Amino acid sequence: MYDQTLAKRAGQDLNRIRDTKPLVHNITNFVVMNYTANALLACGASPVMAHAREEVEEMTSLAGALVLNIGTLTPYWVDSMVKAGKRANEKGIPIILDPVGSGATRLRTDSAKRLIQEVEITVVRGNASEVLSLAQEGSKTKGVDSLHSVDEAADAAISLSRELDTTLVITGEVDLVTYGGRIYMVHNGHELMGYVTGTGCTATVIIGAFLAVDEDPVQASAAALAYFGLAGEKAAESAKAPGTFQIAMLDALYTIDGKGLEEGARIQA
Amino acid sequence: MYDQTLAKRAGQDLNRIRDTKPLVHNITNFVVMNYTANALLACGASPVMAHAREEVEEMTSLAGALVLNIGTLTPYWVDSMVKAGKRANEKGIPIILDPVGSGATRLRTDSAKRLIQEVEITVVRGNASEVLSLAQEGSKTKGVDSLHSVDEAADAAISLSRELDTTLVITGEVDLVTYGGRIYMVHNGHELMGYVTGTGCTATVIIGAFLAVDEDPVQASAAALAYFGLAGEKAAESAKAPGTFQIAMLDALYTIDGKGLEEGARIQA
Amino acid sequence: MYDQTLAKRAGQDLNRIRDTKPLVHNITNFVVMNYTANALLACGASPVMAHAREEVEEMTSLAGALVLNIGTLTPYWVDSMVKAGKRANEKGIPIILDPVGSGATRLRTDSAKRLIQEVEITVVRGNASEVLSLAQEGSKTKGVDSLHSVDEAADAAISLSRELDTTLVITGEVDLVTYGGRIYMVHNGHELMGYVTGTGCTATVIIGAFLAVDEDPVQASAAALAYFGLAGEKAAESAKAPGTFQIAMLDALYTIDGKGLEEGARIQA
Repeated sequence: MYDQTLAKRAGQDLNRIRDTKPLVHNITNFVVMNYTANALLACGASPVMAHAREEVEEMTSLAGALVLNIGTLTPYWVDSMVKAGKRANEKGIPIILDPVGSGATRLRTDSAKRLIQEVEITVVRGNASEVLSLAQEGSKTKGVDSLHSVDEAADAAISLSRELDTTLVITGEVDLVTYGGRIYMVHNGHELMGYVTGTGCTATVIIGAFLAVDEDPVQASAAALAYFGLAGEKAAESAKAPGTFQIAMLDALYTIDGKGLEEGARIQA
Repeated sequence: MYDQTLAKRAGQDLNRIRDTKPLVHNITNFVVMNYTANALLACGASPVMAHAREEVEEMTSLAGALVLNIGTLTPYWVDSMVKAGKRANEKGIPIILDPVGSGATRLRTDSAKRLIQEVEITVVRGNASEVLSLAQEGSKTKGVDSLHSVDEAADAAISLSRELDTTLVITGEVDLVTYGGRIYMVHNGHELMGYVTGTGCTATVIIGAFLAVDEDPVQASAAALAYFGLAGEKAAESAKAPGTFQIAMLDALYTIDGKGLEEGARIQA
Repeated sequence: MYDQTLAKRAGQDLNRIRDTKPLVHNITNFVVMNYTANALLACGASPVMAHAREEVEEMTSLAGALVLNIGTLTPYWVDSMVKAGKRANEKGIPIILDPVGSGATRLRTDSAKRLIQEVEITVVRGNASEVLSLAQEGSKTKGVDSLHSVDEAADAAISLSRELDTTLVITGEVDLVTYGGRIYMVHNGHELMGYVTGTGCTATVIIGAFLAVDEDPVQASAAALAYFGLAGEKAAESAKAPGTFQIAMLDALYTIDGKGLEEGARIQA
């Protein structure tokens, strides 16, 4: 059922992160800055947070990937994201967007759509509700309320990915990664991840690190999600409540190596 | 000595939070955003942090309770708090204010007083010095420096609560909750809580979650403090230093159930 | 090899922090606010974070030390740092600057230099690349790329310290503290510290706490670094991965006492 070639490549990607320690530039929300920085370090990457208009372009130029996350957005921060994003596009640096709360308020939905319009985003990652809120008006993509199964979510994701011409990642009990009609499903993960704030945001930055070392965004995203989900599974072996679990997640991200990821990845092509 | 009816209701409140997962909208300080979000998740509630002027009203409208915390305030943030607070008042959504550092600088004291004046606050929670700094000029409420016992603090709190016409919570070795002459004392807690940053702010958000499911602010506050203090006691069973203690607190918030809270709550009516 | 007088004074400093609980005012970055506040509490100091123009001077006046950290700077925040710094200078309150990322972007380098020019900084702490980026144009101080040993770094640090007329701390495998030709080397520490975000920033705030109780910045910095590095060593006795390690660090900061520090400090004069 699970694809061994993809699992093997996931392990190779992780080794490459540890060998090259890519700089990941984050313009992200206040809630998760500390935890996502620690997750990137545990993964082997090198995090930097910088959001001032005066420096985002310069900082992005140094990075292997750019993470844009609107979790505690203001218009100032979104402007900085656009500036950084345009520079990343010029330099060919991959960008992942996390449209936190898109669909919940107009500012969030509009800002996420603006970013997609003004910047060429490599990957968008969110939950089903956030990602599907990005459909343009008049889109034929089904809304999240009309989805009753993973299969229906997959159809909606494939359709929206074509519409936006970008790789979409919808995380949930099963994670979906799709682009160009291709779709992968990642089965790693653990329910305690839902009790730690910013788990989704952390999945996003891990994908960022994988994008820095793997040119195929679909492959890189699936690999990152398998790794992140596997860390949740390892953490749950010892931790039974969310405090110790969030700390055990960081330990597992650090401890899992390329071979362990290859063996534990459950990616369905 | 301890009130069994109040303890029972505390347990029911906690069960109701887990059943309904109320959204708690936080406009709060940078230091505690991550920890308070994790505490709300462990409690069973659903946290969101949002502060942009363009969206706070819309976000508050979706929430079961609003938390205002001035720990790292600027005038911009206070303006957003006023906007969100007014919307919450229109919608009948309960509001808890944490006047962090009120009394220490003019900006903090003035901002806390402005919030109380322009917004109908349901509960104010702080330490004795912060809460008593809210007395209007010419108030007869005793200042914190003149308090030499819990009884004197209780008298001052009752007096100030009448003056401000709002529920006041003063946390300390014993927590006081008062409104309309009624006063409850909560005896749960542990001294290691003083070595974790934002413990007070975390008590505030937990009260926020309880306000979302219990219409009596005095009862809801006492229940929340018993729950939070009990989590500190449980954490101290295994943790002897503040690092492991802060993590064990999150575990305990998650692990304590309605029945455990009913048995462990030490609320004095 | 290690100086016993310095080790003894380190222990005395730590005892003094616990006796006097100095207030440390931080204008710092979003990533580390929570962790550094917890580290200060574990150390026995009393942290406050405040950055609004309207209150920084008032807040600084209450403090025993001021920490300036440009990790997520904007021009607004740097202006606040200058205001607070000038007030600290008037009051004779020691200031430590952490020039995070200086050398990486123009905004960071310029802001760090501006702070050093407009404010009398007591101590600057960074890694070799950050600290050496502070050399003025035309400086004879060697750049970081030309350093191939701790001895060469020491020579460059001594030279730059003379040029800037301030105590410089360069942290790394061995920490250097220098002023007026004097140089101390601190050998405490553990490699897992590099896998926790903001370890450098945390070293900075700990130095801040020691500056509040010890008038000699060179001595205070060396003492703080020995204490902080020793906490890393203690943490590594039980923790083998960065999640549990960061928590064990906080525990160790709390658990180490004056006598333990005196015995464990490895400061070379």
